[in-house]
Amino acid sequence: MDFRVALIPGDGIGPEIVAEARKVLDAVAVKYGHRFTYETLLMGGCSIDACGVPLTEEAVAAAKASDAVLLGAVGGDVGNSRWYSVAPGLRPEAGLLKIRKELELFANIRPAYLYEELKAACPLRDEIIGEGFDMVIMRELTGGLYFGVHETKEEDGLRKATDVLNYNEEEIRRIAVKGFEVAMKRRKNVISVDKANVLDSSRLWRKVVEEVAADYPEVKLTHMLVDNCAMQLVKDPAQFDVILTENMFGDILSDEASMVTGSIGMLSSASLGAGKLGLYEPSHGSAPDIAGQGIANPIATVLSAAMMLRYSFDLDREADAVEAAVRQVLKEGWRTCDIYSEGTKKVGTAEMGDLIAARV
Amino acid sequence: MDFRVALIPGDGIGPEIVAEARKVLDAVAVKYGHRFTYETLLMGGCSIDACGVPLTEEAVAAAKASDAVLLGAVGGDVGNSRWYSVAPGLRPEAGLLKIRKELELFANIRPAYLYEELKAACPLRDEIIGEGFDMVIMRELTGGLYFGVHETKEEDGLRKATDVLNYNEEEIRRIAVKGFEVAMKRRKNVISVDKANVLDSSRLWRKVVEEVAADYPEVKLTHMLVDNCAMQLVKDPAQFDVILTENMFGDILSDEASMVTGSIGMLSSASLGAGKLGLYEPSHGSAPDIAGQGIANPIATVLSAAMMLRYSFDLDREADAVEAAVRQVLKEGWRTCDIYSEGTKKVGTAEMGDLIAARV
Ligand SMILES: CC(C)[C@H](C(=O)O)[C@@H](O)C(=O)O
Ligand SMILES: CC(C)[C@H](C(=O)O)[C@@H](O)C(=O)O
Repeated sequence: MDFRVALIPGDGIGPEIVAEARKVLDAVAVKYGHRFTYETLLMGGCSIDACGVPLTEEAVAAAKASDAVLLGAVGGDVGNSRWYSVAPGLRPEAGLLKIRKELELFANIRPAYLYEELKAACPLRDEIIGEGFDMVIMRELTGGLYFGVHETKEEDGLRKATDVLNYNEEEIRRIAVKGFEVAMKRRKNVISVDKANVLDSSRLWRKVVEEVAADYPEVKLTHMLVDNCAMQLVKDPAQFDVILTENMFGDILSDEASMVTGSIGMLSSASLGAGKLGLYEPSHGSAPDIAGQGIANPIATVLSAAMMLRYSFDLDREADAVEAAVRQVLKEGWRTCDIYSEGTKKVGTAEMGDLIAARV
Repeated sequence: MDFRVALIPGDGIGPEIVAEARKVLDAVAVKYGHRFTYETLLMGGCSIDACGVPLTEEAVAAAKASDAVLLGAVGGDVGNSRWYSVAPGLRPEAGLLKIRKELELFANIRPAYLYEELKAACPLRDEIIGEGFDMVIMRELTGGLYFGVHETKEEDGLRKATDVLNYNEEEIRRIAVKGFEVAMKRRKNVISVDKANVLDSSRLWRKVVEEVAADYPEVKLTHMLVDNCAMQLVKDPAQFDVILTENMFGDILSDEASMVTGSIGMLSSASLGAGKLGLYEPSHGSAPDIAGQGIANPIATVLSAAMMLRYSFDLDREADAVEAAVRQVLKEGWRTCDIYSEGTKKVGTAEMGDLIAARV
């Protein structure tokens, strides 16, 4: 089959890791007889440098016309980069927020699990790790505080800033449905996270999630307050299967959860809308400090490409093959420096990509 | 000297742990020649049962007329308690939010540190614990999403909920000043946490914090995004001295930080305003599951009473004595069941209070 992939290498290590994911996709194409055509788009700092804005309308249109978008990472060092001396709407991250909104990618899916081979990198004690853990964070991505009115003004001689958190029942329902659908394919356990003892939006969230739950009688639903969830992720991560939450809480908790695994260089993510078009990116950032050195770990991006095969192209077998290739490479002891430990074999970004591609 | 203490035992284990803190305060009074007079006030579920509201105006007036308020905990089991079948403003936690606002307690101080004796309870690996860690979270407590407009309505046939996040520069400045003052007495390192890549309120927060920082040239200031902070608390807690942040982020991060210590039954908190009046409470909740059994750990409440001596009464020597007594009791091997481990001696709530009081 033919698929059009929009590649957005972005900034920092982005170009290096996207190149490796492409290598792996090409191996999939050869092995399974597909054709991937790539179009490279600018977003983030590199787009600011070239076009004066973090994401052009042409790039948005090209992304919309593609079958899926594969992203590296955007942004630089906030303290030390020319990209941050401009208005917020013109900074690299604004490109990311804009593409999420324009493509209506309301569902962010971030798996966080412990790799048996990388157990030593997990910051938690072995007693807490137990048999390991494996969860998915389902984060609402186009509503809430991110996309409400933002305003700064002077009132009575004082500077005052306002951000608005809005949700309507439709926005909550569609992410909840995705959350329960994902749970049905997993351990059938949804923990919905909110701050219902303080926020009206959380109380509406809770109600609508319960309405959706009625259609999934096999799935167990529990509500958890966000402060408690931040504790439970450290205390007992194995209790989580699917975490369902709104945009800002999801931002915080998904980062906490990925750090808890100890393998942030290994975690992929998918941002989906109502149709098949999705945006796939590693959970980690652009790591400007190690950019250009050929040492970044491309695995999270490769696994994001696997999610793309699965969710946007319905190529389950091919996605399985990529995931199996990654596991194989780890089992053979190959490691980039971020996950290196004594007794394993250290390789660079490109070599890691070659190893995975060869095993597809 | 004479001090009037408003005691709010509250719900669940609240009455049991407050009784022990009072025991310790009485020992301080005898030893150092002070007089504490107590008035017991209702708040939370017990106030709903007795008065129909979680906090009466009379209780607010009595708290305002006291020199300090010592609180146990409020609230019950959200799923299984009659207190939660009413409108949000009438639930137990609304009493807590109301007293914070009425007493203008804008600065919440929550220390989170590792007890050498309880290292085994810390969920993090020994390599990450390293030499231990010791931080204070300074959380803004009367602004932000907690106290903006909350609204639920129907629009175009859809239920829609809104919460508003507001900060003005004065609200930011006063908590920032407290944060830098605390840092001056510690390791002179402030990490201010925000989401400045998304929120206007965070961008104003950052600016005002920088203005305040100019008055404290000895203190090192760093800005950190909230999602990154949620990761760093797990990855390397020792990097933190003072964390300065707004209300909702502080709620999430302070709970995460206290769980990271592994000793949540040991962590105190103070909520302060512009004057000397403060509210002191343990960081943990009302634990309805173990209420009335005489097994709750009173140490967090005892240490909150020590903070009261220090911040509201300027009795530093007396506060030191209480803290030293707690350390002594731990060193001697006495433990409540939540922190019990093999080879130590298990005691109940009252016995733990007796042991600490005897060592003051
Ligand atoms: C870069 C930033 C705006 C973004 C977010 O907050 O959503 C990032 O943290 C993420 O989680 O993808
Ligand atoms: C009970 C609740 C409203 C409260 C808060 O969110 O502030 C609690 O979690 C706390 O941190 O004191």
